Amino acid sequence: MPSPRPAPVQLVIVGSVGLDTIETPAAKRTDVLGGSASYACAAASFFTRAGMVGVVGTDFGEDYFGIYRGFGFDLEGLQIREGRTFRWSGVYEANMDNRRTLSTELNVFAEFMPELPRHYRSAPFLFLANIAPALQLRVLDQLRRPRFVAADTMDLWINVALADLKKVIRRIDLLTLNESEARHLTGERALIKAARKLLGWGPKHILIKKGEHGAVLFSRRSTFLMPAYPLEEVHDPTGAGDTFAGGFMGHLAAGGQVNETALRRAMLVGSVVASFNVEAFSLDRLRKLKPRELARRVKEFKAMLRV
Amino acid sequence: MPSPRPAPVQLVIVGSVGLDTIETPAAKRTDVLGGSASYACAAASFFTRAGMVGVVGTDFGEDYFGIYRGFGFDLEGLQIREGRTFRWSGVYEANMDNRRTLSTELNVFAEFMPELPRHYRSAPFLFLANIAPALQLRVLDQLRRPRFVAADTMDLWINVALADLKKVIRRIDLLTLNESEARHLTGERALIKAARKLLGWGPKHILIKKGEHGAVLFSRRSTFLMPAYPLEEVHDPTGAGDTFAGGFMGHLAAGGQVNETALRRAMLVGSVVASFNVEAFSLDRLRKLKPRELARRVKEFKAMLRV
Repeated sequence: MPSPRPAPVQLVIVGSVGLDTIETPAAKRTDVLGGSASYACAAASFFTRAGMVGVVGTDFGEDYFGIYRGFGFDLEGLQIREGRTFRWSGVYEANMDNRRTLSTELNVFAEFMPELPRHYRSAPFLFLANIAPALQLRVLDQLRRPRFVAADTMDLWINVALADLKKVIRRIDLLTLNESEARHLTGERALIKAARKLLGWGPKHILIKKGEHGAVLFSRRSTFLMPAYPLEEVHDPTGAGDTFAGGFMGHLAAGGQVNETALRRAMLVGSVVASFNVEAFSLDRLRKLKPRELARRVKEFKAMLRV
Repeated sequence: MPSPRPAPVQLVIVGSVGLDTIETPAAKRTDVLGGSASYACAAASFFTRAGMVGVVGTDFGEDYFGIYRGFGFDLEGLQIREGRTFRWSGVYEANMDNRRTLSTELNVFAEFMPELPRHYRSAPFLFLANIAPALQLRVLDQLRRPRFVAADTMDLWINVALADLKKVIRRIDLLTLNESEARHLTGERALIKAARKLLGWGPKHILIKKGEHGAVLFSRRSTFLMPAYPLEEVHDPTGAGDTFAGGFMGHLAAGGQVNETALRRAMLVGSVVASFNVEAFSLDRLRKLKPRELARRVKEFKAMLRV
């Protein structure tokens, strides 16, 4: 009997996989599953067949793989390397607005060389979560002809790898980053000016994340202003941006169309996935999340935006 | 010949009238027309017949009256008292986020006793801009049967006149205040919890202003999340909240209906009026604003919110 062909991947997600130690004013958790790829893949899996690209160490326990399998995304692009998994620890201040990094151990992530399995290479959608721009470029080179590519970045790369980051920006359809990063990268204080400058560098869309204040999608001919779903309790903000992006890309990949309406709806959905994610540590809330709950909150959120 | 009957007033606005000295990183202006009633009446006048209730001193120059007459609102409720007009001076920090009060001279405002002219008393709409709660109560007592009453407040009154403020809150339909004031007044960090508490005190609607992040309308059965119109340049943020509220109440009074749809549309319109107001010092931008420009930006803003 021939071995079964793997199901085609609609959305490739490359990013970090790590074990996080997180302290909030209410609680502390040690070595919980985290990293941008974990959050984004989990979120995307509610909508489409996602394939993870990342690296873990030989200490990455069976429990963690079990969590991944529960979401049902493709793990063939997840490398296992001799050594310890990437670790991060941080503490959130009283109102959860500010977080302080206590330690970062790159471990196997320091030597990460993303390698796409053959059946990932024709995926129409690609999300380059926050990793070194040089690695993002390496992934871009391995994809055949993606229909839509989005990339995230962070302050660190603006400071230490600007030339590579600009190369990435030239080759993607959508750049996502947060408010302060957009200002830092462009030197413009007004978001609308920062976005206009970034659009000039190549991408058709700039998606600026504003945390509890929502997000804005700047395209060449239109702007979409999206507030955030109002939260009563935030238990752990870690992964909010990545679950937003993962839900956004997953919903977009599921629809298959990329147009202004599809992008706006995908933002709503991504925002709702993120609103669930922050209700508990790590992926705890998404693991229990039912499609029915998700659909209900999307509907409720839409009603809050109607004019 | 009998003297002409004054045109009926649809919206009564009571608040402060003052001369402001304002310093921004770019410029400084001395004794420009300001105060919550000035901003709110100017904004409301684009939509409805508003009547001002306030007080100025004998130093209040003809130029300032000329500006008021240009907007066309009713001035019969504006008292002129022996003495100097209320004065405020403040300075905005680099990114306009923070302002510092340099001086406050109450002058004639210290003895203000609002008195509604007869033809104001049947007005269906009332906006109690930010003044002492005791004065807001005094105005409430003078109106016959207003259909819809909104009130604004500030930290000062939460600290020094909480009992009166709570009396006001019990008698109005809508309370508007900013994010930090809502938290201060209720002791709740999450806006949704703060709003729920405030709704329990009487008003049917709580409108929380979030500055450059928009506003949220909490009603008993629904929530409306409104982002702010994205601005390229802010020349003077003074009066943003008052022009928002004035435009909101003016648009509502013009429509005559108070329902969720009308409230949401009025918020959009108020937000657009405020977006113009911050483009110049004092009422300079609103004085030049054409209904056509306003309508164009409202349309543009709506397109930015569509999902």
